Amino acid sequence: MVANPERRASLADAGLQVLASAGARGLTHRAIDGAADVPQGTTANYFKTRDELLGALGERVFERLAPDVARLAQLEDRPPGIDLSIAYIEYIVERTTSEPDVMRALFELRLEASRRPGLASILHETLARNFRLDVEFNRQAGLAGGPMEIALLRYAVDGLLFELLTVPMDTGLEPATVVRELVRRVLNGQPTVP
Amino acid sequence: MVANPERRASLADAGLQVLASAGARGLTHRAIDGAADVPQGTTANYFKTRDELLGALGERVFERLAPDVARLAQLEDRPPGIDLSIAYIEYIVERTTSEPDVMRALFELRLEASRRPGLASILHETLARNFRLDVEFNRQAGLAGGPMEIALLRYAVDGLLFELLTVPMDTGLEPATVVRELVRRVLNGQPTVP
Repeated sequence: MVANPERRASLADAGLQVLASAGARGLTHRAIDGAADVPQGTTANYFKTRDELLGALGERVFERLAPDVARLAQLEDRPPGIDLSIAYIEYIVERTTSEPDVMRALFELRLEASRRPGLASILHETLARNFRLDVEFNRQAGLAGGPMEIALLRYAVDGLLFELLTVPMDTGLEPATVVRELVRRVLNGQPTVP
Repeated sequence: MVANPERRASLADAGLQVLASAGARGLTHRAIDGAADVPQGTTANYFKTRDELLGALGERVFERLAPDVARLAQLEDRPPGIDLSIAYIEYIVERTTSEPDVMRALFELRLEASRRPGLASILHETLARNFRLDVEFNRQAGLAGGPMEIALLRYAVDGLLFELLTVPMDTGLEPATVVRELVRRVLNGQPTVP
């Protein structure tokens, strides 16, 4: 059987749905066959082991949350500076909260990885690669901040998204305010790249 | 049957263990009876519904992660200022990472709440109360920062803890460096309270 990338992606999407509705423990190859309405055994043909399946869902989250090319082009036309850094982070919050199940799935997978070393090693690679890409993207865009600043922003945005996608703790702050204050403070004094 | 607070706490601790090893889906009243080595039905006597049980585990996480009184007294003896703010956050990171299953349980419960409105409303109350207590503690300690700064720090620390307790993304930074840079930048220019 020749692997079909579109079929693979649509099985992964069905897996993300199952993960959202039933949690990691409800996610089985068979449950995905059912959700994707494909013959039993199809998901197992594409993802041989449970770790491989869960790891592929982690990869798929980043594909699903990738920025829209046209929106990115608009942002790239703007002059680098703190307002552009804020706009990029606002766009991350916008696209992750508009598909809440997808980002929640990544949090579920990361937690599940603390119980599954095989999954941890796959996700580690995915997360580390995406962190390097974020740092490189920021540099190429001429924006302020290196690995330290990207890490601080990433931690705070993860914490904010975790709240927005689960249970509020009543900080009284709008997400846009959090993003603006966060970026200003983290990048305070960091020069944009010439 | 008269409720026994110690029994209640020890059942909740057994619940946190089950949650850590089996995830939210593996957590049942019966599994907790087994883990706590008590007669079947005991856990159901203390926590009538699944939402009540999960909500009580959320409360228990905060009890388990509460600061040690002697350590707190040492910190309270130090003069307020940025270094003391850093020391308080370092102590949060120290005590949550030294009991990794307990903090992971809170993340699991928050995610589970996105699928369970009854749990969400219990956890909402717990989280909102703890946020207010953090803001009030910070003010009474004479430390810099109000609700905005506490929220920014809380988000970033949640994101850092989520990484430390699940899968690294290879930022190349030590947690102590992250905490120091984070507190300095978030509190930059915020006066300590006279």
